[in-house]
Amino acid sequence: MFKRVLIANRGEIAVRVIRACQELGVETVAVYSTADADSLHVQLATRAVCVGPARAAESYLNLPALLTAATESGCDAVHPGYGFLSENAEFADLCAKCGLTFIGPSGDIIRQMGNKSAARALMQAHQVPVVPGSDGPVPDAQTALDLAGTIGYPVLLKASAGGGGRGMRRVDAPEDLERLFHEAKSEAEACFGNGELYLEKLILNPRHIEFQILADTQGHVIHLGERDCSIQRKNQKLVEESPSKALTPELREAMGAAAVAAAKAAGYVNAGTIEFVLDQEGHFYFIEMNTRIQVEHPVTELVSGLDLVKEQLRIAAGLSLSVEQDQVVLRGHAIECRINAEDFRHGFRPCPGRTGFLHLPGGPGVRVDTLLYNGYEVSPFYDSLVAKLIVHAPTRLEAIRRMRRALAELVIEGYPTTADFAHLLLHHPDFVRGQYDTGFLAGHMDEILSWDCGGASN
Amino acid sequence: MFKRVLIANRGEIAVRVIRACQELGVETVAVYSTADADSLHVQLATRAVCVGPARAAESYLNLPALLTAATESGCDAVHPGYGFLSENAEFADLCAKCGLTFIGPSGDIIRQMGNKSAARALMQAHQVPVVPGSDGPVPDAQTALDLAGTIGYPVLLKASAGGGGRGMRRVDAPEDLERLFHEAKSEAEACFGNGELYLEKLILNPRHIEFQILADTQGHVIHLGERDCSIQRKNQKLVEESPSKALTPELREAMGAAAVAAAKAAGYVNAGTIEFVLDQEGHFYFIEMNTRIQVEHPVTELVSGLDLVKEQLRIAAGLSLSVEQDQVVLRGHAIECRINAEDFRHGFRPCPGRTGFLHLPGGPGVRVDTLLYNGYEVSPFYDSLVAKLIVHAPTRLEAIRRMRRALAELVIEGYPTTADFAHLLLHHPDFVRGQYDTGFLAGHMDEILSWDCGGASN
Repeated sequence: MFKRVLIANRGEIAVRVIRACQELGVETVAVYSTADADSLHVQLATRAVCVGPARAAESYLNLPALLTAATESGCDAVHPGYGFLSENAEFADLCAKCGLTFIGPSGDIIRQMGNKSAARALMQAHQVPVVPGSDGPVPDAQTALDLAGTIGYPVLLKASAGGGGRGMRRVDAPEDLERLFHEAKSEAEACFGNGELYLEKLILNPRHIEFQILADTQGHVIHLGERDCSIQRKNQKLVEESPSKALTPELREAMGAAAVAAAKAAGYVNAGTIEFVLDQEGHFYFIEMNTRIQVEHPVTELVSGLDLVKEQLRIAAGLSLSVEQDQVVLRGHAIECRINAEDFRHGFRPCPGRTGFLHLPGGPGVRVDTLLYNGYEVSPFYDSLVAKLIVHAPTRLEAIRRMRRALAELVIEGYPTTADFAHLLLHHPDFVRGQYDTGFLAGHMDEILSWDCGGASN
Repeated sequence: MFKRVLIANRGEIAVRVIRACQELGVETVAVYSTADADSLHVQLATRAVCVGPARAAESYLNLPALLTAATESGCDAVHPGYGFLSENAEFADLCAKCGLTFIGPSGDIIRQMGNKSAARALMQAHQVPVVPGSDGPVPDAQTALDLAGTIGYPVLLKASAGGGGRGMRRVDAPEDLERLFHEAKSEAEACFGNGELYLEKLILNPRHIEFQILADTQGHVIHLGERDCSIQRKNQKLVEESPSKALTPELREAMGAAAVAAAKAAGYVNAGTIEFVLDQEGHFYFIEMNTRIQVEHPVTELVSGLDLVKEQLRIAAGLSLSVEQDQVVLRGHAIECRINAEDFRHGFRPCPGRTGFLHLPGGPGVRVDTLLYNGYEVSPFYDSLVAKLIVHAPTRLEAIRRMRRALAELVIEGYPTTADFAHLLLHHPDFVRGQYDTGFLAGHMDEILSWDCGGASN
């Protein structure tokens, strides 16, 4: 096992990694920007190093500062968390060059899975179902037009090097295709220096179902079941749960096998997530792989009883997985609500501020992962996620009731949060029945907001 | 299920019961003394009724006030928690007379198990092993002397109606017996109005092993494994864990079967605990039954995945247990540390006070059951328990490391607590090896205190 790990991140995920390291007897070196000097992760780590000013580009994304902090503090490994540099192939390569173990896959694997059209082609070659579309890039608008005619509208034009919706266009009819093709290409060139596009059928309002996988250096690859992350607002996940109401045992087995096949196809090592869309007819398609730990990983931890961050450390240290596939027992039901410092009554606009009275829920089946403490100043410079509330119970209905109970106990004064919104959402009959897809929140936002009395949730 | 439950208690157990009720959709009526007006249980309940002044005899033990509160607020059931009236047969009887379901066994069962020599005789009659001693009360000192000669010294003289060590004497040699017999008899008469004594062999420094049982009105009786509660200071439990390092699978099965037999012998209904002592040679003996929920019940909840308070409510409502014995799967290892507002550096003297900065640990496998919030004034009138920290992990060693990590995160300012003591104890090599008995803490107190630096634990 490692002696000392640098945690190249902040917030709740830095705290989460510190906890795993402490329980494994591994020292931790936190990094922080000048805006984060009073942060919880700084206080909980064995030691802490300031890596730059508030702007992430100059601190948490500052490769030389991070590598210097790691080597000068005598670290032998680096955990990237999620976001920031977690899917930056160059950072993984540089860690390796500096003699630091990057707790994640190699730079080459990150690079391979980061190129969306290459990842898609790889999956196709290994019989992992992908959304119908082009085999690799489409050279010109006419080829795209022919293909779209075959697979049927609407289709999506996507940049191979893309992300965040840039270089992406939805095409609903053939007469719009040529114009949108050139728009997307120009945008992709401007954003990524690479105008390469590929084409996919647009699956309307699918379920977003992702499978957690673990792969060690000895070639063991297992999955830990799915997470249903279909409750999204503008592609931002708000509530995640496991298992998904949309999966039959047969479908779960097929998708789990596909997820393992996908990870094997990629030659993957460490924890990762295979994201699928599931259409109304029960067909599933690979969309992408996240080569890092996810925000919503606790949902899987609660149903599997495994500590995913400890597994990441074990894998990176060359140890084998602590369980084999047939030892994985998924028990009960888990739900996570992301608590963001946002005003959902005004378009979910971020609302940083000083934390006043803080009371976290407790009792059976309740887990809180947070960066908050009494008096903590939520920074305007970073993500608005301030806490994750995760519950576990024998059944889905009990988990929903437990989450409502926990949300009602939660008090965060000083700024608005999404806790009240989650509380309303958890009373929506379609959510209670498990009947929702990625279009649900957009379609029901006004209805849910109309239930709000503008005050506390309980 | 019930419509509205009166919670005849305070503190963390009142909060615990409210949580279970909320998750079952049952309304709650909290009761409180004038000293507890700002308590968490008052804030979390559906409504709250003041039942008297600070002194428990005039509020939480005030039968007429509690029964009036229950009936006037339209409750259909009463949960007694632990302590206070939880093992008061008269209260259970009066609830029944008022048309209220007492969430616990009947008054007759409480009475039967409350008489220690009667309970002992009942167990003997049903082949549940008891500590060698008298068959029922001993009429005079000469009979006691003869019996002690047969079973061997040291022996204990105990009041049949006893409790809290009153009317109890340890006898080490025959020449002391007559004098101590009369002392114990007089004390029992003075304390309980009943001078009846019985005699038992004194098992020196045993393990305290208790089995959680559940029994419904349909005659199902199951056990949920053991809790090792041998870490005690002056008969007060400080740390509890499950499973116990002292039990082999065979011994666990034998003791579990004895616990179920004991509950069946008592005609028991609801949640209860069968307490055994386990001697150095692996012999176990019934000592008593607790006819209520225990402080340390979360340890069993974490390994079994069951919610014991919900089971209590189900049973009292006439429903059957949610699981059968062969569906009980005990998974991993759980440890509980009781956090008391006490100064362990000065004889564990209670130290009530105003809660200053409060930070509760979180993350994977950590549960906190507490009555605390920022600014809460810990009352000098009641028990010094302010929080229970409970962890769960796949193995005992991981649970110990997780507990150390959680204790290190815990911050309670405003008064001393036993958290730092627990942190020291969890580093003792004998505790880590699981080699301890009920004499451990007395024998190692000076050693453990010598490790203390007088400051924070981390």
